[in-house]
Amino acid sequence: METLNVGMIGYGFMGRTHSNAYRQVCNFFDLKRQPVLKVACGRDAANVAAFAKQWGYESSTTDWREVIARDDIDLVDICVPNNLHKEIAVAAAEAGKMVLCEKPLATSVADGREMVSAVEKAGVPNLVSFNYRRVPAVTFAKMLIDEGKLGQIFHYRANFLQDWTIAPDVPQGGPATWRLDAAAAGSGVTGDLLAHCIDTALWQNGSITQVNAMTETFIKERVHAETGQTQPVGIDDACTFFCRFGNGSLGNFESTRYARGHKALYTFEINGEHASIRWDLHDLHRLEWFDHNDAERLRGWRSIHVTDHGGEQPYMDHWWVPGLQIGYAESFVHQVADFLGAVEEGRTYGPTFAEALETQKVCEAVLNSAASGQWVDVTSGAG
Amino acid sequence: METLNVGMIGYGFMGRTHSNAYRQVCNFFDLKRQPVLKVACGRDAANVAAFAKQWGYESSTTDWREVIARDDIDLVDICVPNNLHKEIAVAAAEAGKMVLCEKPLATSVADGREMVSAVEKAGVPNLVSFNYRRVPAVTFAKMLIDEGKLGQIFHYRANFLQDWTIAPDVPQGGPATWRLDAAAAGSGVTGDLLAHCIDTALWQNGSITQVNAMTETFIKERVHAETGQTQPVGIDDACTFFCRFGNGSLGNFESTRYARGHKALYTFEINGEHASIRWDLHDLHRLEWFDHNDAERLRGWRSIHVTDHGGEQPYMDHWWVPGLQIGYAESFVHQVADFLGAVEEGRTYGPTFAEALETQKVCEAVLNSAASGQWVDVTSGAG
Amino acid sequence: METLNVGMIGYGFMGRTHSNAYRQVCNFFDLKRQPVLKVACGRDAANVAAFAKQWGYESSTTDWREVIARDDIDLVDICVPNNLHKEIAVAAAEAGKMVLCEKPLATSVADGREMVSAVEKAGVPNLVSFNYRRVPAVTFAKMLIDEGKLGQIFHYRANFLQDWTIAPDVPQGGPATWRLDAAAAGSGVTGDLLAHCIDTALWQNGSITQVNAMTETFIKERVHAETGQTQPVGIDDACTFFCRFGNGSLGNFESTRYARGHKALYTFEINGEHASIRWDLHDLHRLEWFDHNDAERLRGWRSIHVTDHGGEQPYMDHWWVPGLQIGYAESFVHQVADFLGAVEEGRTYGPTFAEALETQKVCEAVLNSAASGQWVDVTSGAG
Amino acid sequence: METLNVGMIGYGFMGRTHSNAYRQVCNFFDLKRQPVLKVACGRDAANVAAFAKQWGYESSTTDWREVIARDDIDLVDICVPNNLHKEIAVAAAEAGKMVLCEKPLATSVADGREMVSAVEKAGVPNLVSFNYRRVPAVTFAKMLIDEGKLGQIFHYRANFLQDWTIAPDVPQGGPATWRLDAAAAGSGVTGDLLAHCIDTALWQNGSITQVNAMTETFIKERVHAETGQTQPVGIDDACTFFCRFGNGSLGNFESTRYARGHKALYTFEINGEHASIRWDLHDLHRLEWFDHNDAERLRGWRSIHVTDHGGEQPYMDHWWVPGLQIGYAESFVHQVADFLGAVEEGRTYGPTFAEALETQKVCEAVLNSAASGQWVDVTSGAG
Repeated sequence: METLNVGMIGYGFMGRTHSNAYRQVCNFFDLKRQPVLKVACGRDAANVAAFAKQWGYESSTTDWREVIARDDIDLVDICVPNNLHKEIAVAAAEAGKMVLCEKPLATSVADGREMVSAVEKAGVPNLVSFNYRRVPAVTFAKMLIDEGKLGQIFHYRANFLQDWTIAPDVPQGGPATWRLDAAAAGSGVTGDLLAHCIDTALWQNGSITQVNAMTETFIKERVHAETGQTQPVGIDDACTFFCRFGNGSLGNFESTRYARGHKALYTFEINGEHASIRWDLHDLHRLEWFDHNDAERLRGWRSIHVTDHGGEQPYMDHWWVPGLQIGYAESFVHQVADFLGAVEEGRTYGPTFAEALETQKVCEAVLNSAASGQWVDVTSGAG
Repeated sequence: METLNVGMIGYGFMGRTHSNAYRQVCNFFDLKRQPVLKVACGRDAANVAAFAKQWGYESSTTDWREVIARDDIDLVDICVPNNLHKEIAVAAAEAGKMVLCEKPLATSVADGREMVSAVEKAGVPNLVSFNYRRVPAVTFAKMLIDEGKLGQIFHYRANFLQDWTIAPDVPQGGPATWRLDAAAAGSGVTGDLLAHCIDTALWQNGSITQVNAMTETFIKERVHAETGQTQPVGIDDACTFFCRFGNGSLGNFESTRYARGHKALYTFEINGEHASIRWDLHDLHRLEWFDHNDAERLRGWRSIHVTDHGGEQPYMDHWWVPGLQIGYAESFVHQVADFLGAVEEGRTYGPTFAEALETQKVCEAVLNSAASGQWVDVTSGAG
Repeated sequence: METLNVGMIGYGFMGRTHSNAYRQVCNFFDLKRQPVLKVACGRDAANVAAFAKQWGYESSTTDWREVIARDDIDLVDICVPNNLHKEIAVAAAEAGKMVLCEKPLATSVADGREMVSAVEKAGVPNLVSFNYRRVPAVTFAKMLIDEGKLGQIFHYRANFLQDWTIAPDVPQGGPATWRLDAAAAGSGVTGDLLAHCIDTALWQNGSITQVNAMTETFIKERVHAETGQTQPVGIDDACTFFCRFGNGSLGNFESTRYARGHKALYTFEINGEHASIRWDLHDLHRLEWFDHNDAERLRGWRSIHVTDHGGEQPYMDHWWVPGLQIGYAESFVHQVADFLGAVEEGRTYGPTFAEALETQKVCEAVLNSAASGQWVDVTSGAG
Repeated sequence: METLNVGMIGYGFMGRTHSNAYRQVCNFFDLKRQPVLKVACGRDAANVAAFAKQWGYESSTTDWREVIARDDIDLVDICVPNNLHKEIAVAAAEAGKMVLCEKPLATSVADGREMVSAVEKAGVPNLVSFNYRRVPAVTFAKMLIDEGKLGQIFHYRANFLQDWTIAPDVPQGGPATWRLDAAAAGSGVTGDLLAHCIDTALWQNGSITQVNAMTETFIKERVHAETGQTQPVGIDDACTFFCRFGNGSLGNFESTRYARGHKALYTFEINGEHASIRWDLHDLHRLEWFDHNDAERLRGWRSIHVTDHGGEQPYMDHWWVPGLQIGYAESFVHQVADFLGAVEEGRTYGPTFAEALETQKVCEAVLNSAASGQWVDVTSGAG
């Protein structure tokens, strides 16, 4: 079996989920090329070596340019903090590598545009890891919408609620908490969490034309994990926005890290003329479905346990038997299976960098609106 | 508007629910005769007088025979401890009164037979208050079964779980805890709680032919609330039985007052060839429905909020607007509305004493099986 | 027992819920004066006579001024369309009657101010029927907040979702659908549904200082039920707003009548430093509670079945036994019990007209913001 | 890193789950020896070769004796139909291999005893794959019980409900449906499904002393998948039993393949003096917990999302981040991690063959009771 050699840049939480996906994919999906974990790259030599050993990488390094320079690397996977995405991705594209980049694409639309240009100019396959698209229940929701089962859509609502930064002694910066440091992350919940919600929404419901947002930073100063100094907090702890979609439907989005009781509660609900859909990440193997076409007296929200076989529910016939659920990590396996399968067949598979740029534009419009207190237009497409 | 004069015997919890039903029924249902709360009867003169005042009874008394002797009383409602049902019901029937008796019918099949004979000989309308039949979701389940929507039924499962007698210092006997006193109650959870489950099951799924049971009394002695003496506990704290129905389906029933966390969790689940149904008393306004005829990929349990109008869901167009739930007490209003409506139209409405005797037979077979450790046949019908 | 004579203006859905409350209150709560249903008033003589008969009113009339002119009427209850509230309430106050007015207070802040002046000048007890405050789980939530169990509050989220106006052939205007007619209702979901959410929020979480809103009318023209003519739709079908509270917390509110699958899904969630609370109207007898003070490994959302006794959970020891739920209508019984009890004791009980005016101000600010696309300040208090 | 060479006998559903576990374990758990997939064995040469390729086995064979004869195989994993367990396990033990055998241990207590003798005589590490013990929520429940958090236990209830054999045209026998063939499976739901429930129950709640059971075979004849002939069905389609535990608590167990709407609904509920626990396989990452020690007014069932870190909730700090769930397959990873970790440390880890024999004894008593209609004692321990 032909191999596909992977160079992994970054070895944090996402480095693990991606590595796991490359290792599992050929046990469950038929690909022509078997991913091989060739090299892992990170800033701390000892740590990245331990990571490489744990996950079976053949070698490790601290120099990402060295990874990109290697002829035997087919795919570069970027799992580093957001502000480093651009330089690595552009270099990888210029070296002719396939590029799989963690979300969000970049920390600004300007950077994102450069990245899109680079991959398009190089003509390399590219993907941004908005993995929640590949949770079977979420993919299934997309199928039902595309089939027209909801009819005209009136409302799209999404939340991403967490509670891990409520304590004032959580630091910012450094390997564990760079997501609280504006310099590394670009923004707070908007880029980290709402980007997921926006990606899913654009995919399921089409373009967003205008946004109106409010953000808040509840704790104004935090110690920096590396310098030990108290610094202003530059990120948004919470962000709420409403918006209008191109199809006439209304959107309402909210994310916060101050919602006590929610670890990672990504939820969406879509209300259409004929049917409605709900999903949440805490029970990700279920899809809630309300069908107005049911006999009136028997109408009710159905809790669909998305574990069926026979191709009826996406992805599930690759796993176990009906009734037995999969978890979070499998969404990355699906992403890799689909992406590599598309590459083998010469198909484009998304979200490409270009698609992810649309999400970046919405994020930037949201932050601009929060700053100005005004409605902000989202310039989509080539603009 | 013509009146229907009610004499209420007993003024405990059930005296309140029945009184409330008579007071509310004509605001929500069309009856030809308006119930009038004529007299309340109880053992303690002061207490029954206070009860009568609270609920608007015209008078009160401590002598139930006096109530039955009155010419102006049309209906005698019996809400006293189980061991007193027979004497009062027989006397009321002999006096030509309609009789509405709280469940269970009696403390033995022998007593129950006497009661059936009395009402049938007198030809008076009679009803036993198995009110859970009249929760809209439960009535709706019965309709769906009768329409054949479940097809062949394989399994009937019911539980009634409580936790109020776990502490050893709960007494037995007396007005508040007569349900723990075998002399007054006849049995424990079997007559008090499983009788409800059995009534619903016989109504929905037909006759039970054989039972096999286990009972337990976890706390062997309790103080008597009136005498202050420690006495053996004669009732069953917990009872489990499985059984066979006449239609070939299997039953599994359990009740206990030792299930920590459940106040009054009456649940049933019915599994048929084409569909399944679940219900529970803690959220009594919902019916869970699984329909195998749904498209395979969209199958799931539906949570039906039974509050619709237009006659589609039983009883609900008499109340508020869709989406607004009713509670426990309304089941008694429905019972009175249906019973008095049937009387006005000369129809029989159940569970009559004769039907309730079938439940009594199952209860007695269950207790006999628990005592003998053997399967016991239920002799139904005229036997 | 002394009586309290009620004159009811209006006989629609709310006329029924209020009448039921007056009839039930003394069976469950101790009041010194027994409400007596003296007269019902409505525009259609035959219909109001039928209503009066159904609910036991002594008489009926089509002239509300006549009701107010009667010396024997103690309390005037206003259950007519919103645009008629002001004139009747002012007249009733001037006549020295206690006034109970359905929500929203008025169709404008200006009208609301006149109403407040009238009742304050007359010194008459006054209440606006925001009945959801009196659902036990909602009252219980308020108690927990006031005790400080949530600590600092970060987020307040509320939705009120319905789906009954999706079909284009639903008319506007007339007795059944006046809520879709801007002339009668003043606004759409903002005044009808969000007013409930705002009232509860102000009560639980204090003042709202600024709002930013978006509204939509999905169907632009509908037939008028009385004239038969197609007219523009002037109400908002959907309204979303975010806001800032005086205590620094962020609010997110949404209401629509285009959320397929939801009949009357009023929900709120409050996230505090130490605990979070959720509630929804479709299962109104439950309160969801997350307590961060629980041992870490055992933390989880608790589903509290609000049916306990002993004064621990508000109102419930007046009803049945633990585990047996009440429904929607009981919130009106509580409202009447509390209001009349406060009157007997000379206490003020809210929401008074003055408190309801604050809700009106938020509603008006929301509609102004939606029109202008700008943040709008809410001028609270005497302003 | 030292290796541990695995020989896999069988390549069906369980062959896949076990193979996945060996492949994943060292990415998530620290073991001294890395499992290596050395050889896969099955009856069909082409199929087993394809399986070996899919999962990365170095070779494949159709002769299980050859696997056992190899010196380089350290562990024999048995995933074949139940009636073949004994011969292979005994041979493997005699060859000095570690043995991991799928459940149930055997098709009879007599066979099970031989297997226990063989592994004990050989002194080889042995484990039966009752994987549900290793679902984090289930392991967590065991911890809470062992800590005494439930106090005296009154009730243990477990169900395992499926619906895949309702159609009469499902065949029996052969690779896909050997579970319906008494010759291969030994029994129906009792050995296949109730064995899981019984294993968990014995582990969590101690010995079962007496059982009383009812079984049913709804469809009496089915075509054999290999012969094409219609044959009597020898297995139990449904089995219900109640029992007494050594600690005085009562058990109620039920399994069926005729419960429409349930794919693999394994549930248990345990009611103790101080607390109760519920779990179900369809949402296996949650544990429901009711604690009577909570303040009375705030008592409610908690839904604990078992995804926390820091060792507080078993296994989870080996996976992702709090809030992100794992699935079914991970229970096998935990099982292998624990078993191999114990072997490395010289500890015994269960369920050993000896422990699994106790489950076999309960299964056999259940089937005997169903046949005789009598209570049957379970002879536990050395008997």
